Amino acid sequence: MAKRLIPTLNRVLVEKLIPPSKTSAGILLPERSSKLNSGKVVAVGPGLRDKSGSTIPVAVKEGETVLLPEYGGTEVKLGEKEYHLYRDEDILGILHD
Amino acid sequence: MAKRLIPTLNRVLVEKLIPPSKTSAGILLPERSSKLNSGKVVAVGPGLRDKSGSTIPVAVKEGETVLLPEYGGTEVKLGEKEYHLYRDEDILGILHD
Amino acid sequence: MAKRLIPTLNRVLVEKLIPPSKTSAGILLPERSSKLNSGKVVAVGPGLRDKSGSTIPVAVKEGETVLLPEYGGTEVKLGEKEYHLYRDEDILGILHD
Amino acid sequence: MAKRLIPTLNRVLVEKLIPPSKTSAGILLPERSSKLNSGKVVAVGPGLRDKSGSTIPVAVKEGETVLLPEYGGTEVKLGEKEYHLYRDEDILGILHD
Amino acid sequence: MAKRLIPTLNRVLVEKLIPPSKTSAGILLPERSSKLNSGKVVAVGPGLRDKSGSTIPVAVKEGETVLLPEYGGTEVKLGEKEYHLYRDEDILGILHD
Amino acid sequence: MAKRLIPTLNRVLVEKLIPPSKTSAGILLPERSSKLNSGKVVAVGPGLRDKSGSTIPVAVKEGETVLLPEYGGTEVKLGEKEYHLYRDEDILGILHD
Amino acid sequence: MAKRLIPTLNRVLVEKLIPPSKTSAGILLPERSSKLNSGKVVAVGPGLRDKSGSTIPVAVKEGETVLLPEYGGTEVKLGEKEYHLYRDEDILGILHD
Repeated sequence: MAKRLIPTLNRVLVEKLIPPSKTSAGILLPERSSKLNSGKVVAVGPGLRDKSGSTIPVAVKEGETVLLPEYGGTEVKLGEKEYHLYRDEDILGILHD
Repeated sequence: MAKRLIPTLNRVLVEKLIPPSKTSAGILLPERSSKLNSGKVVAVGPGLRDKSGSTIPVAVKEGETVLLPEYGGTEVKLGEKEYHLYRDEDILGILHD
Repeated sequence: MAKRLIPTLNRVLVEKLIPPSKTSAGILLPERSSKLNSGKVVAVGPGLRDKSGSTIPVAVKEGETVLLPEYGGTEVKLGEKEYHLYRDEDILGILHD
Repeated sequence: MAKRLIPTLNRVLVEKLIPPSKTSAGILLPERSSKLNSGKVVAVGPGLRDKSGSTIPVAVKEGETVLLPEYGGTEVKLGEKEYHLYRDEDILGILHD
Repeated sequence: MAKRLIPTLNRVLVEKLIPPSKTSAGILLPERSSKLNSGKVVAVGPGLRDKSGSTIPVAVKEGETVLLPEYGGTEVKLGEKEYHLYRDEDILGILHD
Repeated sequence: MAKRLIPTLNRVLVEKLIPPSKTSAGILLPERSSKLNSGKVVAVGPGLRDKSGSTIPVAVKEGETVLLPEYGGTEVKLGEKEYHLYRDEDILGILHD
Repeated sequence: MAKRLIPTLNRVLVEKLIPPSKTSAGILLPERSSKLNSGKVVAVGPGLRDKSGSTIPVAVKEGETVLLPEYGGTEVKLGEKEYHLYRDEDILGILHD
């Protein structure tokens, strides 16, 4: 059974991060504040081609933590793991601590 | 009666893979986990042309196992075999063990 | 009365093939299997122009047997014969025995 | 009062041909067979410009007999004569005896 | 108060011609025949820019008599005079006696 | 509090001119004739970029009196003054006495 | 927990400015006049790519005060702070005192 997926074109495979309800010090996080729809980039496609035929690199890289749109994303189950597939232009930004 | 189809432009001919309900060791697979909508690429078209007139190679290759979108695909019966025809930009990714 | 039509731009003139209900050996073909919506290319246009002004050759050639989409196609009667006119990007593929 | 019209861009001025209901030998033509929606090209525009600024010649020429789409075309009366104006990409093909 | 308007981009300023209901010899013209929706070009814009940045000259010139579409056109009153503003691609053709 | 706005891209900031209901000689202007929806250009953006990356200068200049479309325009209040923001392609033309 | 967001493509991260209801001298500002929907640019993406593959710099810069459209913008909470994400073409202009 397939374990790995290399996305096509400018698609990005993301593993969603479930935000902790408590801080490392155990303090309960207020409901709204922790709910950042984010995920880790697991794999990226080769990119789209522009009109002149050259390839446009995908806007995010493997390993980056990204801010995801509220809607969209195609659910993909590989073995027991669940991922989501996005087009790179739908990913809102790259998150840094 | 026609046995072979060479797709036009960036179309891709795929033979859908029916996921096994049991593992090779005979263990019954849980209903949801095995349901990956995938297929084997049987033939690809020559590709579309970009604005400058050069051909854009198709995003997948013959023999690759690909992840298919939930909807879409045109059913094509050649002899006794059933295939599906997709545009390459609708194929989600390439699956690897 | 006009007998011949040279299509314009990337249009393709096709004569539909009515699939035989019996094999050459006389065996009645099951209803569904023989129903391949196909036809023979009778004439093709000069092709469209791309953004840089050069002509994009039509995706199929005269004499080829092609797989037609389920819908679309403009009916054209020339003398007693009936043809259908398609845009080349709507033709699904080229059929080979 | 204006007698002549030079179409703009890729427009084509056509005088519709009313198909004869009888053959030259006087035999009544069956209703459907003679109904080819065709016309003679009376004048063509200079053509559209493509992205690189050069002009794309119109797909048909003055004097040619062309196959017209079932719908569309702008009616234009010049003096006592009635014409129809089409964009060249809507003209289906060029008819030859 | 403004008396003159230089249209922007590919806009064309037209003064509509009201067709005479009688010929110069005084003969009453049949209602339909004289109703050609035409006008005189009073001013044209500098033209649009194509993708490569160069300007595409407007399809008609000042002083020409043009055939107008049945609908569209923005009414513009300058002093006591009434004009109509069109995009050049909406003007059907140039009329000649 | 902000007093000045530099529009982005091909946007144009306009201060609408309220047409006088009387001529300088005090004669009451007929209601319809004076109603020219016009304004003075207060600021323009740097312009859009075309496909080849170069900037397309905005179609109107600061200080010009322009004819505005009947609808559209975003209201912007800077201090006590009211302005309207348009895209340059929506401005109909430049008015001259 | 993520504190910083680098927007992708031509997205712009903005911190909205809540207009003071009183002037510095304490005079109560009339309700309507102070309501300018503006904000400070906190971060910008690398920009979109044009057809020829080169990057189009974002229309606004970090630190600038910008006029925001009445609608649109994606709410993003980073820690305790609230931001809004816009595409650069939706930002109306740059505000100066």
